[in-house]
Amino acid sequence: ADAEDSAQALRLQQLLDDKTKPPGSLGRIEQLAQQLGLILASEAPVLQAPQMLVCAADHGLAAQGVSAFPQEVTRQMVENFLAGGAAVSVLARQHGIALTVVDCGVAHDFGGDRPGLRVRKAAPGTADASLGPAMRAAECAQAIAHGMDLVRELPGNALLLGEMGIANTSAATLLTARLTGHEVAACTGSGTGLVGPALAHKLRVLQSVYLRHADARTPLAALAAFGGLEIATLVGVLLQGARERRVLVVDGFITTAAVLVAQALAPAVRGYCVFSHLSGERGHAIALAHLGVRPLLDLGLRLGEGSGAALAWPLLQSASLLLREMASFAGAGVSKRGELAV
Amino acid sequence: ADAEDSAQALRLQQLLDDKTKPPGSLGRIEQLAQQLGLILASEAPVLQAPQMLVCAADHGLAAQGVSAFPQEVTRQMVENFLAGGAAVSVLARQHGIALTVVDCGVAHDFGGDRPGLRVRKAAPGTADASLGPAMRAAECAQAIAHGMDLVRELPGNALLLGEMGIANTSAATLLTARLTGHEVAACTGSGTGLVGPALAHKLRVLQSVYLRHADARTPLAALAAFGGLEIATLVGVLLQGARERRVLVVDGFITTAAVLVAQALAPAVRGYCVFSHLSGERGHAIALAHLGVRPLLDLGLRLGEGSGAALAWPLLQSASLLLREMASFAGAGVSKRGELAV
Repeated sequence: ADAEDSAQALRLQQLLDDKTKPPGSLGRIEQLAQQLGLILASEAPVLQAPQMLVCAADHGLAAQGVSAFPQEVTRQMVENFLAGGAAVSVLARQHGIALTVVDCGVAHDFGGDRPGLRVRKAAPGTADASLGPAMRAAECAQAIAHGMDLVRELPGNALLLGEMGIANTSAATLLTARLTGHEVAACTGSGTGLVGPALAHKLRVLQSVYLRHADARTPLAALAAFGGLEIATLVGVLLQGARERRVLVVDGFITTAAVLVAQALAPAVRGYCVFSHLSGERGHAIALAHLGVRPLLDLGLRLGEGSGAALAWPLLQSASLLLREMASFAGAGVSKRGELAV
Repeated sequence: ADAEDSAQALRLQQLLDDKTKPPGSLGRIEQLAQQLGLILASEAPVLQAPQMLVCAADHGLAAQGVSAFPQEVTRQMVENFLAGGAAVSVLARQHGIALTVVDCGVAHDFGGDRPGLRVRKAAPGTADASLGPAMRAAECAQAIAHGMDLVRELPGNALLLGEMGIANTSAATLLTARLTGHEVAACTGSGTGLVGPALAHKLRVLQSVYLRHADARTPLAALAAFGGLEIATLVGVLLQGARERRVLVVDGFITTAAVLVAQALAPAVRGYCVFSHLSGERGHAIALAHLGVRPLLDLGLRLGEGSGAALAWPLLQSASLLLREMASFAGAGVSKRGELAV
């Protein structure tokens, strides 16, 4: 059995159709229940010990003025995550999701692991991609290996993917353009809030970086060329998470860029991914269309951190509970459609 | 202060803008937080003791073959709600929402109140609207009064609205057409799953009923003409809930038809309503557009019962928690945008 097992999919659909409701009337929640049953290879899937991984890193390209916020905000937000004051902190607490922040390459020394923090640094930030590759191949491989190791250390059967990194919409934009074949301009958005001339400047910088690395065409070459360390770590998380049959809850634009890379390396990854929301960031719809998937929520979120994944989490719990706990027509003594009308 | 207080709205927006995130980056969750703050007249709104009311009743029009399910399913589903096996039962349990089923006019004698069941019957089902008015004016008024009384008896500051009644998409369709001015054909959908000739038959019946009651043009006259008893009870719930400044979580097509009536009677009602989802039932988008509102979820749900309201409930909790618990830029020592760039 795998996430594409068609016989198991049919059994799950029959179970859902026998629940006390008109067939299909729970809409995409039924598809979600089916997917969870396939991933966890169970007709009564139970989500256990969900883990939110917020992968944080800095980007050398920030020096080119592609973000509305200064680079030190990456470090400051890591402290905010740990102190419990960030959006993802509040949402993870609400839903009983364990939150682990990973320093994948923040330009700051946190002094080693702390409760809630894992320091897994392949480098203290990427190099400026406008001057050369963001990562050396060895750094990129190490960041991916860190992601795989992190998953091996975590309990549970569901991972929620988050990220933080000033300028990381730039890296995600470049990866999305390269891996989907769309124009950089079509994939470039406001990030944390650029408008007018500042947004035009970001686009010019990204077009120039894109051309500079025209030869970085394989998924791994593009990842190394454009960055970032947090995206590479997330690629490792996705690859290992799928291998272990965990449910992978994808957040927004940056985490979806990691899926583009991981799926290009291992196509089975996509079947383990639940796409939580459509981001307000422009390139996200392009990345999702390339993957042929439709996310659960469309709320104009554009924060990242894993906030959209956390907001969607109760829908996954609902889907698994409905599959497990709803009565069947026979069990509840409810007439099926048309029984008396015949 | 009321749900439209513009000074309070501005204060809430300033609070949200000072949270550690780019302005507006939580999208519609920010608007939801603002609405909850306005309804509950608080800059730190706390949702307390949420109550799901599933209003159930039968429809005489069911005799005309407008539903895919036999009328006895209304009674059977009431037992299923009480036994905990229906979708809304599972979802209410998941989220700690108290569930009360109201017999507003089921064609069955449940023998009085039971744990989780309130018998508030203005009549044992409506009359067949193809032959005359579904309700007498006095029955309609009594059903509304029952809804108001129910709210007075319930604790908490949030009500989730659900319903059950074989053939009640027909009543909702007729109400939506009459109160929005759209064609019956544009408002008619598959309900529990009619297709082809059965759907064409439903449409012919509804067009005939619509013309028969061409003179029922005021909200209350239309409600009495088309039914049903559960919709009238929900109108009372909405009117009293708004008066008591409770958050009113609207489910799908049938509960939105109740909002159309209530809002026509008391325009302030709309400000207290959170629209949980866009139903797959055809007329729902028309009703929502008439009200000028956009729901939170779009998952192709078409079950009713309050299932969509329950699925959206954690988003309301998230919105209030983010407003209360997220750190401010100053409090968390995070740099605001552009501070270092100037």
